[in-house]
Amino acid sequence: MIVVMNPGAEQKEIDRITTKLKNMGYGVHLSTGENRTVIGVIGQRREEVAQTMEAMPEVEKVVFISRPFKLAGREFHPENTVIKIGDLAVGGEELVLMAGPCAVENEEQLMEAAVAVKKAGARVLRGGAFKPRTSPYSFQGLEKEGLRFLDQVRSKTGLYIVTEVMDQFTVAEVAECADIIQVGARNMQNYYLLRELGKIRKPVLLKRGLSATIEEWLMAAEYILSGGNYEVILCERGIRTFEPYTRNTLDLSAVPLVKQLSHLPIIVDPSHGTGIAELVPCMSRAALAAGADGLMIEVHPNPQEALSDGPQSLNPRQFKELVGSLKGVAASVGRTI
Amino acid sequence: MIVVMNPGAEQKEIDRITTKLKNMGYGVHLSTGENRTVIGVIGQRREEVAQTMEAMPEVEKVVFISRPFKLAGREFHPENTVIKIGDLAVGGEELVLMAGPCAVENEEQLMEAAVAVKKAGARVLRGGAFKPRTSPYSFQGLEKEGLRFLDQVRSKTGLYIVTEVMDQFTVAEVAECADIIQVGARNMQNYYLLRELGKIRKPVLLKRGLSATIEEWLMAAEYILSGGNYEVILCERGIRTFEPYTRNTLDLSAVPLVKQLSHLPIIVDPSHGTGIAELVPCMSRAALAAGADGLMIEVHPNPQEALSDGPQSLNPRQFKELVGSLKGVAASVGRTI
Amino acid sequence: MIVVMNPGAEQKEIDRITTKLKNMGYGVHLSTGENRTVIGVIGQRREEVAQTMEAMPEVEKVVFISRPFKLAGREFHPENTVIKIGDLAVGGEELVLMAGPCAVENEEQLMEAAVAVKKAGARVLRGGAFKPRTSPYSFQGLEKEGLRFLDQVRSKTGLYIVTEVMDQFTVAEVAECADIIQVGARNMQNYYLLRELGKIRKPVLLKRGLSATIEEWLMAAEYILSGGNYEVILCERGIRTFEPYTRNTLDLSAVPLVKQLSHLPIIVDPSHGTGIAELVPCMSRAALAAGADGLMIEVHPNPQEALSDGPQSLNPRQFKELVGSLKGVAASVGRTI
Amino acid sequence: MIVVMNPGAEQKEIDRITTKLKNMGYGVHLSTGENRTVIGVIGQRREEVAQTMEAMPEVEKVVFISRPFKLAGREFHPENTVIKIGDLAVGGEELVLMAGPCAVENEEQLMEAAVAVKKAGARVLRGGAFKPRTSPYSFQGLEKEGLRFLDQVRSKTGLYIVTEVMDQFTVAEVAECADIIQVGARNMQNYYLLRELGKIRKPVLLKRGLSATIEEWLMAAEYILSGGNYEVILCERGIRTFEPYTRNTLDLSAVPLVKQLSHLPIIVDPSHGTGIAELVPCMSRAALAAGADGLMIEVHPNPQEALSDGPQSLNPRQFKELVGSLKGVAASVGRTI
Repeated sequence: MIVVMNPGAEQKEIDRITTKLKNMGYGVHLSTGENRTVIGVIGQRREEVAQTMEAMPEVEKVVFISRPFKLAGREFHPENTVIKIGDLAVGGEELVLMAGPCAVENEEQLMEAAVAVKKAGARVLRGGAFKPRTSPYSFQGLEKEGLRFLDQVRSKTGLYIVTEVMDQFTVAEVAECADIIQVGARNMQNYYLLRELGKIRKPVLLKRGLSATIEEWLMAAEYILSGGNYEVILCERGIRTFEPYTRNTLDLSAVPLVKQLSHLPIIVDPSHGTGIAELVPCMSRAALAAGADGLMIEVHPNPQEALSDGPQSLNPRQFKELVGSLKGVAASVGRTI
Repeated sequence: MIVVMNPGAEQKEIDRITTKLKNMGYGVHLSTGENRTVIGVIGQRREEVAQTMEAMPEVEKVVFISRPFKLAGREFHPENTVIKIGDLAVGGEELVLMAGPCAVENEEQLMEAAVAVKKAGARVLRGGAFKPRTSPYSFQGLEKEGLRFLDQVRSKTGLYIVTEVMDQFTVAEVAECADIIQVGARNMQNYYLLRELGKIRKPVLLKRGLSATIEEWLMAAEYILSGGNYEVILCERGIRTFEPYTRNTLDLSAVPLVKQLSHLPIIVDPSHGTGIAELVPCMSRAALAAGADGLMIEVHPNPQEALSDGPQSLNPRQFKELVGSLKGVAASVGRTI
Repeated sequence: MIVVMNPGAEQKEIDRITTKLKNMGYGVHLSTGENRTVIGVIGQRREEVAQTMEAMPEVEKVVFISRPFKLAGREFHPENTVIKIGDLAVGGEELVLMAGPCAVENEEQLMEAAVAVKKAGARVLRGGAFKPRTSPYSFQGLEKEGLRFLDQVRSKTGLYIVTEVMDQFTVAEVAECADIIQVGARNMQNYYLLRELGKIRKPVLLKRGLSATIEEWLMAAEYILSGGNYEVILCERGIRTFEPYTRNTLDLSAVPLVKQLSHLPIIVDPSHGTGIAELVPCMSRAALAAGADGLMIEVHPNPQEALSDGPQSLNPRQFKELVGSLKGVAASVGRTI
Repeated sequence: MIVVMNPGAEQKEIDRITTKLKNMGYGVHLSTGENRTVIGVIGQRREEVAQTMEAMPEVEKVVFISRPFKLAGREFHPENTVIKIGDLAVGGEELVLMAGPCAVENEEQLMEAAVAVKKAGARVLRGGAFKPRTSPYSFQGLEKEGLRFLDQVRSKTGLYIVTEVMDQFTVAEVAECADIIQVGARNMQNYYLLRELGKIRKPVLLKRGLSATIEEWLMAAEYILSGGNYEVILCERGIRTFEPYTRNTLDLSAVPLVKQLSHLPIIVDPSHGTGIAELVPCMSRAALAAGADGLMIEVHPNPQEALSDGPQSLNPRQFKELVGSLKGVAASVGRTI
């Protein structure tokens, strides 16, 4: 249930309603738009509560929400959410490029990648310190040392950092170094982790699970939002299908669909989405044309020698060329880069 | 196995080689490029035949092809295939728009749709006379009468016609009316139909099967090519996955992948690919940005009253707006519309 | 809509109702059970027609059917359909074994396989004369000659024959030789073929499409039933999923589900369902325990030399052992073999 | 790489080899069979190490393992692993029934379910105290209180307990109460959790992920085994496909395939696997016929009032009937129940 306040309702009127709802045992979330405040009400749906609310003079209307996601839905928050990270805005007119190696391998590799992607136009450096790997015998990431390298490179380059967190007990540690905390596809339904991320005040990049429906994905975002952290960036990274040529099937229709259902920004990761470096440029352009708010792309100084995901990584020259080609596409859909 | 002739090999030299191969029991297909002729050799792979061929002075080299598709592969035909239909070219610099109703319902509906899509910029009119339907109790198309209406509308508007054929025995009939003969997703592996289409000399639009891998799709094209009809246009129209919000999952990564593996042109059908009219504009732009050679879009004068596929059809106003938005995207990837 | 007649309604009463319905423009199908006749009414659903029918004294009740399949549904025909083929019954207490090579390769191979599977307990010989193959360069079957061999082996062994038909124009030819006409997975939605099979009076074995939902499969059966041929045997043969170890994923839950939704018999093909000979015995036993009415199994005198599907074929010794192991499973679910 | 010792090699000989390998920097795992000890060697594959080992007189042979799973593979441990839990054995001749409610709701519900399933023949009680739920607004389990109830019911009934753990930091707590610790489908690739479970000495029930390949599943088991906990029971619970009638598609071919690839026991959960109570009996029988070592079935005193998964739960009477029907199937495949 959401309670839509009259345009121009004052703070004390809003407070009166929220207090009343809390006294009835409901959880309350505010969405403050330019003209209007919307109150998301979490709890048992009851007709008489809705009637009581609609009878209040400062309330315009009460809407029952049919979708299972509530705070993540457009009904609760009709305007696009724009997430500010320093001087960067995700979800606004300007598209955001996140790029860097799959894994932080050592200081030099990270610095080399960072300098290259910054020069080409990226504003956010990606790089995994904690790596979820299918095999226990594969390289598992530099962990704390990797975080330290990321922190150093941030200081030196001014790039913002996005890096993955793998469990709820390292959230604080990762949050110290990261400007955006990434939840990987395999952890999209790690509910303890999602709850913990609901408690902090840092943007979260939530990757779609390997076989998650769009509804389940938005419900995972709902876990974070319902905890009080409203800064969630969704990231489409391909789903599992029967097609063997590509590592995953990049579901770009998720982009306009998420825009319709939700107010949250959404970016696309064509590197994991295809698993093939040669396809990344075309799918990057397609993602922007589909309406994505940005891209996350794997760039490695020497893809052939990468400790993970080499075949899907661009080298710095390829990335630079790609960025050059994106400006026209961005302009054609009324965005800038 | 393919035999690559020397640049500038003369016709009589080519004839000498092909005769030799035929005498050895092989099937032979020619791909005549600007600089070079390539001979596709169909039959048992034998090392000594390759050696014999390589020893001939007019032969540059012999290549064994590892992929199961041969004539459809880039190795056999390194340049893009451009298919000429009257003054139209599919696979060239100019992108091709095919639009119209799912089914031909009556003469007025078809004419109204045709006039609207032509005005907006479409060059090819789509419309099904024979309709494959899941239920035996659903509208099955106007059949012959539908073909007649298509023929009339072609005369009046100058639009080219693409329409579906459902079995090998109506190929001739459909070919009389159609400029491009469509094979629907459910018939992608109807091999008798594919063989029959290999015998005619009209372009074939081959839709990807609902759960066909890209390799199976190219093998279906190979059936047509190996019959001697080299004019096949591939059409990505979504694959079946677990995601319930969209009718299918439009696999745009198939576009650059097909371009890499094959020389055949490829277009995209975002109407069937998503099943939701609101998603069609974004996915049309994304398809062009991904490198597609054109689009096939469902347009109905009154989508609410359509006898089939109403929810995914644009109305004429929406189609006009969409085409307007495509020019910028086309320009951004070096194409025109 | 179905009209359920009173128990013991006489033929002339039934005729009176059906005539009335036909005069109103409806199509009519009869299901004559032990106690009661049910009339399936095909056409526009109209409340007043239902009321008129319910007012007739010989009518017990009128039921609106919610599922899209009507004649294939249990509501229309509450008892199991048992299909008689000579002295064989499919769908009764006794389980049916169909076995033989994927393709008819020559007379000796077929005869050898036939003798072996008969000795082990099979009653029906499978063997493809027309073969749908992904590649145009693969062995495509012996076609008419293959049918001739099947006919000869039938005369000599007394086995019944099941063989595939690939298009509507060879239905008559195949029906002459086959006791059961098979529709392959790729043709499950070849509606012209299904319509043609609705016109004949021979049992049809309808394989589930590679990515067909159970509803689409029953709708394909509905095409045949609505043409007047009520003898359809369904065959689960695996669906396409992301799992690469098996050729397909055998969906055994389809067996009890089809039994719940429909009255038609259902058998299982674990050879195509898994693609791995070693898994066939376990999955055969599982299929019977799940409630299947029979099995279709690939048996080849020399699997290593088979022209198609060798890796999933049992040799005669393995098949004999398998049949031996099935009796106990059959008994445990109240069936015989 | 695995080192197979001579039959009858003595402990000191084995120690000599393992010490040698450790000194070379390798990790070492022992599999002690009736006749022979196999040493699993984890680390860089090097030809000269293999030669050195083969030259040792107490070594029979060295085998390189091609599959990515090593300790979970049959090559490392050719005999079936049988896991002892008190007087119970999982993976032996006797089949194991685990049954109980999806979630522990209160003491009475749990006790009622426990008494019923014990009487019907179950040896292990299932019941979730920590519940992973798609929506943050759904019932999330009684958590610690739920564990307490499980502990009490164990004391009173003598049933063994299997219950889910959702993160690495509650492993100790859950292990205190549980006889078998369950890893849910959504956590199959929660590698921190898997590593923690590798450190304890309690059996782990590892459910297959919603879209996990069999290889990824065995790799998840490998995480636990490589930590030193060799007691892993696999549980097939359905995979995600396009079929909408069933909640998941139960992949029973995984049973014989896992038996071929691995030595670990495997059970089947037909309740989650189908999501429909009416299908559970058929699929339970099918699972045993396919070779499963046991079943996990949801039983609730009042399925209609269950806080989660009611539609797939059996009531006590249905469960009793089901168990009755299983004995014959078990006998038919040489097992007991």
